[in-house]
Amino acid sequence: MLMRSFILLLFVAAFISTSAQNTTTTLHWQVGHADHLTALPEQWVSATVPGAVQLDMANAEKYDPYYYAENWKDYLWMEDKFFVYKTSFQKPYLDSTERLFFVSKGIDYEFEIWLNGRQLLHQEGMFTPVQLDLSALVKEKNEMQVKIYPVPKMHKSPADRSQAAQSVKPAVSYGWDWHPRLVPSGIWDDTYLEVRHASHLRDVWVDYTLDDKLSKADIEIKVEGVQLDQCKMAWELRDARGKAVLQKAAMIHGNNAQFPVEFQQPVLWWPHDHGDPYLYTSVFRLLDREGKLLETHTSKVGFRKVALVMSEGAWNGPDGFPKGRSVAPIQVQINNRNIFAKGTNWVAPEIFPGVIDSARYKELLERALEANFNMLRIWGGCIVNKESFFELCDQLGIMVWEEFPLACNNYLGTPKYLNVLRQESESIIKRVRKHASLAMWCGGNELFNNWSGMTEQSLALRLLNSQCLLLDPKTPFIYTSPVIGMAHGHYVFRDWNDGEEVYARMTRARNTAYTEFGLPAPSSLEVLQTIIPADELWPPKPGTAWESHHAFKAWVGDTWLMQGMIEDYFGKSKDLEELIANGQLLQCEGYKAIYEEARRQKPYCTMALNWCFNEPWPTAANNTLVNWPNIPKPGFYAVSQSCRPFMASAKITKLKWKEGEEFSSDIWLLNDTYSDVASGKINVKLKAGDKELPLLSWDFDAPEANRNLAGPTVRAILPAWEVDRFELIVEVAGHAECTSAYTLLYVPKAKAAQKGTAIMNQ
Amino acid sequence: MLMRSFILLLFVAAFISTSAQNTTTTLHWQVGHADHLTALPEQWVSATVPGAVQLDMANAEKYDPYYYAENWKDYLWMEDKFFVYKTSFQKPYLDSTERLFFVSKGIDYEFEIWLNGRQLLHQEGMFTPVQLDLSALVKEKNEMQVKIYPVPKMHKSPADRSQAAQSVKPAVSYGWDWHPRLVPSGIWDDTYLEVRHASHLRDVWVDYTLDDKLSKADIEIKVEGVQLDQCKMAWELRDARGKAVLQKAAMIHGNNAQFPVEFQQPVLWWPHDHGDPYLYTSVFRLLDREGKLLETHTSKVGFRKVALVMSEGAWNGPDGFPKGRSVAPIQVQINNRNIFAKGTNWVAPEIFPGVIDSARYKELLERALEANFNMLRIWGGCIVNKESFFELCDQLGIMVWEEFPLACNNYLGTPKYLNVLRQESESIIKRVRKHASLAMWCGGNELFNNWSGMTEQSLALRLLNSQCLLLDPKTPFIYTSPVIGMAHGHYVFRDWNDGEEVYARMTRARNTAYTEFGLPAPSSLEVLQTIIPADELWPPKPGTAWESHHAFKAWVGDTWLMQGMIEDYFGKSKDLEELIANGQLLQCEGYKAIYEEARRQKPYCTMALNWCFNEPWPTAANNTLVNWPNIPKPGFYAVSQSCRPFMASAKITKLKWKEGEEFSSDIWLLNDTYSDVASGKINVKLKAGDKELPLLSWDFDAPEANRNLAGPTVRAILPAWEVDRFELIVEVAGHAECTSAYTLLYVPKAKAAQKGTAIMNQ
Repeated sequence: MLMRSFILLLFVAAFISTSAQNTTTTLHWQVGHADHLTALPEQWVSATVPGAVQLDMANAEKYDPYYYAENWKDYLWMEDKFFVYKTSFQKPYLDSTERLFFVSKGIDYEFEIWLNGRQLLHQEGMFTPVQLDLSALVKEKNEMQVKIYPVPKMHKSPADRSQAAQSVKPAVSYGWDWHPRLVPSGIWDDTYLEVRHASHLRDVWVDYTLDDKLSKADIEIKVEGVQLDQCKMAWELRDARGKAVLQKAAMIHGNNAQFPVEFQQPVLWWPHDHGDPYLYTSVFRLLDREGKLLETHTSKVGFRKVALVMSEGAWNGPDGFPKGRSVAPIQVQINNRNIFAKGTNWVAPEIFPGVIDSARYKELLERALEANFNMLRIWGGCIVNKESFFELCDQLGIMVWEEFPLACNNYLGTPKYLNVLRQESESIIKRVRKHASLAMWCGGNELFNNWSGMTEQSLALRLLNSQCLLLDPKTPFIYTSPVIGMAHGHYVFRDWNDGEEVYARMTRARNTAYTEFGLPAPSSLEVLQTIIPADELWPPKPGTAWESHHAFKAWVGDTWLMQGMIEDYFGKSKDLEELIANGQLLQCEGYKAIYEEARRQKPYCTMALNWCFNEPWPTAANNTLVNWPNIPKPGFYAVSQSCRPFMASAKITKLKWKEGEEFSSDIWLLNDTYSDVASGKINVKLKAGDKELPLLSWDFDAPEANRNLAGPTVRAILPAWEVDRFELIVEVAGHAECTSAYTLLYVPKAKAAQKGTAIMNQ
Repeated sequence: MLMRSFILLLFVAAFISTSAQNTTTTLHWQVGHADHLTALPEQWVSATVPGAVQLDMANAEKYDPYYYAENWKDYLWMEDKFFVYKTSFQKPYLDSTERLFFVSKGIDYEFEIWLNGRQLLHQEGMFTPVQLDLSALVKEKNEMQVKIYPVPKMHKSPADRSQAAQSVKPAVSYGWDWHPRLVPSGIWDDTYLEVRHASHLRDVWVDYTLDDKLSKADIEIKVEGVQLDQCKMAWELRDARGKAVLQKAAMIHGNNAQFPVEFQQPVLWWPHDHGDPYLYTSVFRLLDREGKLLETHTSKVGFRKVALVMSEGAWNGPDGFPKGRSVAPIQVQINNRNIFAKGTNWVAPEIFPGVIDSARYKELLERALEANFNMLRIWGGCIVNKESFFELCDQLGIMVWEEFPLACNNYLGTPKYLNVLRQESESIIKRVRKHASLAMWCGGNELFNNWSGMTEQSLALRLLNSQCLLLDPKTPFIYTSPVIGMAHGHYVFRDWNDGEEVYARMTRARNTAYTEFGLPAPSSLEVLQTIIPADELWPPKPGTAWESHHAFKAWVGDTWLMQGMIEDYFGKSKDLEELIANGQLLQCEGYKAIYEEARRQKPYCTMALNWCFNEPWPTAANNTLVNWPNIPKPGFYAVSQSCRPFMASAKITKLKWKEGEEFSSDIWLLNDTYSDVASGKINVKLKAGDKELPLLSWDFDAPEANRNLAGPTVRAILPAWEVDRFELIVEVAGHAECTSAYTLLYVPKAKAAQKGTAIMNQ
């Protein structure tokens, strides 16, 4: 066997509710809009909660789907309205020890909550949950309102992402090169009435510190609650089979209590490609002084140590004097092991986060596993995901790089903004820090570049750093991506200005981490047909649904369709199918080049995360691997191949080759595993149609753990073939699962002479 | 007039005590040493407080001066001893409203305080003042002890700066390339008994926020004290002539009170070379409920806004994809004005900080003014200076870059270290933030380089960032020097490896700030004679007092005397005087090259701070401009010339020239002023002995505010001269104060032919 052991256990535990005893009541809501805060809607329509006011209105007024053609424009009028949700409910039976709470895990964005004509809360911020004790205010019949303010805008114009620069709301919905202008509003996470005991829990965090040898966890069970004094706690930790391995019982003193427990030899949590994402279950019982059970709080706990350290060689630079600083550490270490992060940038799976549920997360996260990804960068232009996202990442063993909702703006540190950011970041950190999958915090996207204009002096970023330090010191924090040493881009197969292809560009680069890079491709025909009216489909033109779906004028140049470049390589497309196929081939080969070159640059390089994985609505052309809602492009499968933990790889130098030219390529073995790998044989050949040209056999020695192996360089004069493309195949003898193939373009002499068109890269 | 206005007002106000009413009593101390914490010294000697136990012992045992020859070695045995200070005092008369306090502004480093056999305090940290209420414990006759622990050492060996890596104590005293191993201990700042009213002040901070137009200050008077409830406050702000310009009276509620006051049109504080360092006086009176004066707290207030912003052009990089981040901002802005920081690295003026007083600071700070410096980087290897230092900088208009005491170590974030660092940083920030001269905080020296090994993930640095944000958000903070864009070095005239001279090296460099660069020179004979025994003076040899005083084996290569390089340029020295003169010439010309080239690189470059200004004991050879205690080297005067706000400058390309060679140099006007500057004429000539060769006249237009002017390039074939050096003189007609001259070496043809020795740089 080439690989003697390869652990890839998918551990999918049942979802366990966090509060078992409390009775919850679903509310039925209606919503309407008004022009002023104090006005009441003239009309009420049925509301789905969680959801979005936009979807409720669209449903009531029978709008066509927002993702079709130019329909998104129909929703724009809602941005500046006040929306009011209303519901009514009977007072439930409450005994003398019980309290009635209104709970909402998220209301977007600025809002007021009213009960029976009285204002209970005014809040700015969608990530801070609401927990209101209604007991003293509730009547037999109650009328409740949630008034949603117009979407926050720093200024009236320009009507773009800069309007979001003084709010803690995803900037993406104000319009992006892959996202229409559609700014969601409303109740976006679980919302209900709950009857709680007067003594009840607010939060239970099983915090722990692993010792250097990872053989002992010093657990601190940190409890927050109401009227906990004189209550008792009974806690146990259960292993994956449900067996209690640790127990603790004690009196509780005060509403913020901590209970230390020592845990010897915990089974560690690992990313799926390095071990088992092992999770324990914490069961925390709150009991009254007589021992009666009041509440049970159940949660998952994964034991792991995470750090960002310097990668090999990163301390060597810079050289000579005057001398600057060394680069910033970005090598992820889990349980003291360096892990090469292969993954992607995750964006919101839906424009309206209210409609996202666990199943939606699950299908996409399983797709990410299929791509051999072990890390997701949760890009700061979008939301901080709901709890079920993190629960799934914990279970699936996917590392999460979590960004705060700041992206491509200069978020000035005004007192008002900093206050909301402090509140929101505290809520986010206290929720997400409990998850084993959390690998790092990050202030937001591309904040240290000129299109954003923030710096280390920006108070907002210093605040986030401080908040993470105070609330979650054991998780790394970086200000933004990229920081020194890291890089973003390129986002096209070939640079517009110098004509350099992705192959050469990546070979010149030397970065510690590639945390964004993209290759655009048209979406598949099945997707295009659902978003573009039939009469606009061919040929693609600006000013049509193609443009609304980002095929034209999206970013710079002719992004994202880039028909010109595609046809420069392949000639004029005879139909849409051919254009799609050729564009998707460029995406496949481009992504393979970047992922594999980033991996070759290990150990100095430590990460390859493409831009981007998914999309919140169906685009016509985009860098995504997976079309909305979950339709993989061919590029997805190409990337999946390039991210195999152990694989053969070739360093391609250019896409297009001519008859008689000397072809050459360096052959590598890429190895991110710590498993024992045996020696073996690699056969390299070229394949053109049914013709094969064997180039070389290489008997390789077993590489060391987490080390690549640079092999020989193959060379050959390209013979005369009657094809327009050929393949380089790097075959691992007896191990088809490790074999790689690369598609290249071929120009026979006759055709090259014929052809008048200029080909930039030869 | 070339310069129509040049404001340079030295405003030296009388020192005003911070608590006028309280009676203080000086204590008389004795000190002795013991081997254990619980043991008492067998012998007691008289102690000077503030001071150092080492000096007391040396005094008692009649040691020769520690700075002479190898005498510093005599002090090493004291490092691992416990030292005990003792004093006795009579209980003073206290009426029912009075309290007796023991006050010490600083005890170095870990210590206990005992009164009458009872332990009152155990503290680690020299920067946190002690204020102990003795009232309930004091008898008629009292015995007090301060027990000092051995100097902190993280490990026994190596016995170097790394021993300081878990303490908040200056690392320099553990040995540096310009500091002997001499680790001070003991009471190092003012220490006394004080009778206070039961209601008394702990701190008064006149905090303020200037509006964008600098026309209004929103003052918050922030008061901390004891038993302040029911007291009254009466506050006034006096202008520089003593006239009250603002008043406020109010009741005080609670022991942490804030009083807002609006101040229209404050006169702003400026660095001395940009305006008047204008200071107001805050007089805060604490009154009891009947209006009786209890205490007066007087302090200086300078109104200024400080920021670190991106310098011009700094947002342009980096170019292309994959793209990293832009550099970090380091352009100092005072009152919205970009200021080119010309200055130096300040190190401790004394090995034993206990002996530093205001007069000692004053003579050195006035020396810094003489050098045309407007900024001092308070290097993190040394102490945070005493209050009088900052008071003088406020008065003199010198900006202070204040570092925390971390340097060239990996200060691991263990819980114990972080606790001490939290306490010490809070004390430091709360004291220093009140000073107008404070321009920025910095985590420490060269922490992001491989000889230190810290990164953005280091909890100690994240803690300092967080502390500064929470306690002093209006002052910039950087993690270390250098951060991205900045650079340190070079520290020699010519690189050992590639032979590149400082001229070429600096021309190749492109940095936002040069915050350390050095050129070594031997000290003057008068200094050398006080530290090196006469029989060791000539020739200098390793293993003698020369080595102890850093002439040999100090840093890399043959630092810091570098006799080989000096003689490579000038030939073998016939005596010590000649060696000194030649070495000092290299320092002069090297420093001029760096300061002036850094200034030419404005506006992208924003700072030039050499390594270093002063020294804590007399070195035999060092990069310093001023020998201990305050003896300028010739290099000091050269630097002073290169830092004139408005001056002519030449870009020199190399030091040594040959007869017949084409000499060339770019001519510049350097202008850091915002004053109106008139047009004028520059005459450039070469001067060799009594021969002059006029090269060019340049009629220049008045440069814009804070803009340099690139002038013409002069060229000339060097004629036959009978000299070994010549001068390039760039004369501003009618303004000798703006004229510059550069010394260059000359090789006549005959001599060049004769000479067999290789000259690396020609």
